Amino acid sequence: MTQPTWSSLLRLPSGPVDLSALDPRATPGFDGRKADGQAALQELGPVISDLQERLFAAGRSGGVERLLLVLQGMDTSGKGGTMRHAVGLMDPQGVSIRAFKAPTPDERRRGFLWRIRQALPDAGQVGVFDRSHYEDVLAARVRKLARPAVVESRYDAINDFEGELAASGCVVVKVMLHISAGEQRDRLAERLENPAKYWKYNPGDIDDRKLWPDFQQAYELALERCNTGAAPWHVVPADRKWYRNLAVTQLLIEHLQALDLGWPPADFDVEAEKARLAAS
Amino acid sequence: MTQPTWSSLLRLPSGPVDLSALDPRATPGFDGRKADGQAALQELGPVISDLQERLFAAGRSGGVERLLLVLQGMDTSGKGGTMRHAVGLMDPQGVSIRAFKAPTPDERRRGFLWRIRQALPDAGQVGVFDRSHYEDVLAARVRKLARPAVVESRYDAINDFEGELAASGCVVVKVMLHISAGEQRDRLAERLENPAKYWKYNPGDIDDRKLWPDFQQAYELALERCNTGAAPWHVVPADRKWYRNLAVTQLLIEHLQALDLGWPPADFDVEAEKARLAAS
Repeated sequence: MTQPTWSSLLRLPSGPVDLSALDPRATPGFDGRKADGQAALQELGPVISDLQERLFAAGRSGGVERLLLVLQGMDTSGKGGTMRHAVGLMDPQGVSIRAFKAPTPDERRRGFLWRIRQALPDAGQVGVFDRSHYEDVLAARVRKLARPAVVESRYDAINDFEGELAASGCVVVKVMLHISAGEQRDRLAERLENPAKYWKYNPGDIDDRKLWPDFQQAYELALERCNTGAAPWHVVPADRKWYRNLAVTQLLIEHLQALDLGWPPADFDVEAEKARLAAS
Repeated sequence: MTQPTWSSLLRLPSGPVDLSALDPRATPGFDGRKADGQAALQELGPVISDLQERLFAAGRSGGVERLLLVLQGMDTSGKGGTMRHAVGLMDPQGVSIRAFKAPTPDERRRGFLWRIRQALPDAGQVGVFDRSHYEDVLAARVRKLARPAVVESRYDAINDFEGELAASGCVVVKVMLHISAGEQRDRLAERLENPAKYWKYNPGDIDDRKLWPDFQQAYELALERCNTGAAPWHVVPADRKWYRNLAVTQLLIEHLQALDLGWPPADFDVEAEKARLAAS
């Protein structure tokens, strides 16, 4: 009996989405406890590192492949921690991280996908979006930052964009970090208790927290409408940080493995170069 | 008796530079062997991580501090390995790496420091230059890519630029990875023996290797002329990879420690926010 892949376990089925039916404390695909999960993550370091180096090498040798990890989730859902502990397992030379805040007037004027396109990873790179174009159908919808008809038009625009991206050789891995409102409360409280974490706290987080049901609904809509074959959504239960790190790492590994990249062949005469080296 | 700092051991004294007098296999500041050095590096992970987080936090809270690591060295001297193993100990969210290749015509037209200025780290970030503006007095001098008078004028321009940079709150850590010609031969040979490393090999490396003495001389000149108080040079013996990783990490740690950054104070009313959270 083969084990199901992490991708198959975490990939969102098509159809209507009910986030309340997905347990944020679940650990699909992993039987162990925290210490086991942390040990498992450390063992994956060399695995993801090797796969990423192949991608990087291919990019240096004319390959077009690259990977984009889109991280979405409510405040405190652990986007930062995922970058530190999962993305951090890779060689920083091959990683480009971009965090998206509220768009500037200049960015707004150019259409919501413009700044996204600017930030896409180059060939051979793993790009990571800390928030993304999805904020333009999440925060934009909930906080009414754009007219409803404009927001409505964006789902199709996103699907077209991501389809085009995937067709051009970019593996798109979309991950929603799914936490509970209770876990968010605990994490915000921790930021208010510990002076070393004050800087992570933003009073605006409470404003968003009050809109929790609206945000969940906006997520459900975005997840349902933009769950395409070319760029499906994955929902990662994220109340347990160790599981979140392990699951995202496994998703990255499986998507990199699927590229099935060997080492680029020499584009020079190996024996002739050995002779040149010996003579130098 | 206090131990000398790594910065003091590796910092280049002022005056004429003779690279041939510096042993690339030396391990100044460290008595142990390879396994000890690797273990010591792993223990520094949490240390550098904490310091970097303070820098990142300060940057999010209005601080202007940032750090720029300039990595220079002959081909195979280990710039890539240093990024993977030393820079890779830090949170990738706070690191921006930029590799400089031969300038494009557009870059050339704007003056050699233009693209350098474009790539400087933002507040709170650790920027890493894989090669840098120094190529404009190294490769440019040796391969005669610019007129001699133009190259001559650049040393002062670099010192002015770096002085301005340091004065604006950017800690500039300049590191030359110093390897021997024999070690380079072994590393190039390894790339030609191992098909998984073909992609790292470039026949042009042999052309540069033939110019080894000219490059060493150009380095000596650049190191001497641009060894300023605001941005001094460090020469890291780099024939031993484990020592190179340890030494660069220690240099980063000492420079981050010197910033003496605490955690940013709350810019909100902590008790009021606790009450808001409780009510949410």
